[in-house]
Amino acid sequence: METCFIVPMSAHDRLVKAAYEHRGYDAEEAAEAARCCAEAARHGIRTHNAIKAIHLDSALGSGSHGCVPRAMIEELPSRFSACRVWNANRKLGQSVAYRAMAAAIELADRHGVGVVSVDNAFHYLWGGGYVMDAARKGYIAYTNCTAGLAEVVPFGGRYPTLGTNPHSWGFPTVEAVGFPIVVDWATSVVAMGRVQQFRREGRPLPPMAAVDRSGNPTTDAEAAVSLLPFGGHKGYGLALINELVAAFIGGSLPTLRSRWAGDGEKHTPSFFFQVIHPGALAGGAFAGGRTQIENVKAVIADVLGHGNGGVLLPGQPEAEWAARSDAAGGLLFTAAEIAAFNEIAAGCGEAQWDPASLASAG
Amino acid sequence: METCFIVPMSAHDRLVKAAYEHRGYDAEEAAEAARCCAEAARHGIRTHNAIKAIHLDSALGSGSHGCVPRAMIEELPSRFSACRVWNANRKLGQSVAYRAMAAAIELADRHGVGVVSVDNAFHYLWGGGYVMDAARKGYIAYTNCTAGLAEVVPFGGRYPTLGTNPHSWGFPTVEAVGFPIVVDWATSVVAMGRVQQFRREGRPLPPMAAVDRSGNPTTDAEAAVSLLPFGGHKGYGLALINELVAAFIGGSLPTLRSRWAGDGEKHTPSFFFQVIHPGALAGGAFAGGRTQIENVKAVIADVLGHGNGGVLLPGQPEAEWAARSDAAGGLLFTAAEIAAFNEIAAGCGEAQWDPASLASAG
Repeated sequence: METCFIVPMSAHDRLVKAAYEHRGYDAEEAAEAARCCAEAARHGIRTHNAIKAIHLDSALGSGSHGCVPRAMIEELPSRFSACRVWNANRKLGQSVAYRAMAAAIELADRHGVGVVSVDNAFHYLWGGGYVMDAARKGYIAYTNCTAGLAEVVPFGGRYPTLGTNPHSWGFPTVEAVGFPIVVDWATSVVAMGRVQQFRREGRPLPPMAAVDRSGNPTTDAEAAVSLLPFGGHKGYGLALINELVAAFIGGSLPTLRSRWAGDGEKHTPSFFFQVIHPGALAGGAFAGGRTQIENVKAVIADVLGHGNGGVLLPGQPEAEWAARSDAAGGLLFTAAEIAAFNEIAAGCGEAQWDPASLASAG
Repeated sequence: METCFIVPMSAHDRLVKAAYEHRGYDAEEAAEAARCCAEAARHGIRTHNAIKAIHLDSALGSGSHGCVPRAMIEELPSRFSACRVWNANRKLGQSVAYRAMAAAIELADRHGVGVVSVDNAFHYLWGGGYVMDAARKGYIAYTNCTAGLAEVVPFGGRYPTLGTNPHSWGFPTVEAVGFPIVVDWATSVVAMGRVQQFRREGRPLPPMAAVDRSGNPTTDAEAAVSLLPFGGHKGYGLALINELVAAFIGGSLPTLRSRWAGDGEKHTPSFFFQVIHPGALAGGAFAGGRTQIENVKAVIADVLGHGNGGVLLPGQPEAEWAARSDAAGGLLFTAAEIAAFNEIAAGCGEAQWDPASLASAG
């Protein structure tokens, strides 16, 4: 592992809040943004930390037309008791996601299952973080969203008309295995950021991860312009699900997403959140007189048993990174990341972090 | 396409019902079994037609301990209004699945979303058929189940501790594209039946589809003993979801599933059904003044546009096969399949089908 500097959570949150407030967000939005970024960094999700979040806000958010600081969430009328539909009016995605998941939990407490659909959204960054949070509170949670840009070619096609459209599931398994099991990934083989990394490093891409300008699969990172879904038609189907759910909510054409123009079209992503109360699933007849969570623990032990000692649970690397962060007493960032934070600090008039004054972890 | 014989639906259903009644199932169960098999055959799902269903009933169902003819579904008490939990008491899977999906639709009509969880289940065969049916009725439907046997090695492991655990999603897109979009597949690269087919044909398996006795990946169909999930850790996560959902419902250890012993353990799969009323998702602000379904149609057209003419929608091959069946005026079966049906007929004292008297389609 690369040597990392240890940044106290309070210093991180102060800087991130300042950066968001500098961009016009209110204190609550800024705190929600900082919370999401801190949790991402704490769990080692380096692709969705504050550096990425603030870059995204510049590229597609308040720096573009995608996100509107201080926007108000509008609850739309619905005749359905276990579902709510929100018009986010392009409010900060992290704020909307935390609130939507909380609303879905309330619905699940009453109805067993709760769904919150969000129209006119802005990128919520790390879907895994919201389901992990709900899972820690004891719920089975799921979210999907349509990604900001159409970068993925459907299976059998040549032109990117799908987003990297992630799916995230979280399970309340803290009592069973010590952390929430979180299944969370994009439906492309790799992200575009990874293609850029391979390009910088002069390395070939994995096979069937990207296509060139003519729509032909390529492992040449320089020639790659669009992504392919993982698992052929299966990953394509999973990516299409997000576009369909979004289309039922109110999302428009994927190839127009985030590509703002005065065309009377909609350019926003959509979110879908769902929470299930585990009590609403329980048949109550667990083998060997086990409780529900003892049964979950026994099933997981069976999956990981029989010589499968090397198998990781989804969410385990994140839990291990969080333990490392907590032991270090702060968030772990590389020298390059510290430099990027210092650019953010310069941009909003905050004090820079002096690497010489930060402890480090190997 | 191989030449197929055309079997009138009525002849097919008469034989399948007789075969199930011969095994002790009541008339309603036999009709539900026939309906599922007929729909599978009509849509070209040759891996889940009546031949497979009856073979499964012999191997793991009423011929073993897995399925109990004339069993009664027991509704368990629940304080949650949008969720129901059933003890299927090992009733025929197809019967339980049709009824559970109907119950979930009722819940979705009232609450926007409805969930039916089923403990002590028996294999429902073709998950895609149930979501396709609900989608044709206008709903967004989802089901998963734990497969009958643990045949799949978790990513990074050596020993099979997961089922081929399928996921099936259906979307009400008949008005948009002429058929329901159905995303439906197992989480293994291939099914065990496919491995046997490659073995018979002396052909190598696709890479990373199976492992040998030592748990090492192999393309040698003769050496293959267990399957691998598709997409590495992503498919593993998807397979694990079914085990976790089942564990919360009441399913026990995957490696014990269908392996009956007087061990005080549970050996049954579990089912999870979910239906969403599309009205419960609608933000109502579709671009260009489109209706919800016009919006869905526009999004699909965008995905398939831009030179992506060769892209198929999930569910399209099934819809095309159904059109072929309907044009032929019956279900299409190969000579080998007709022979298998005639064995079934012999087993239950029904008249055999004479290929000479059946029309054929090329």
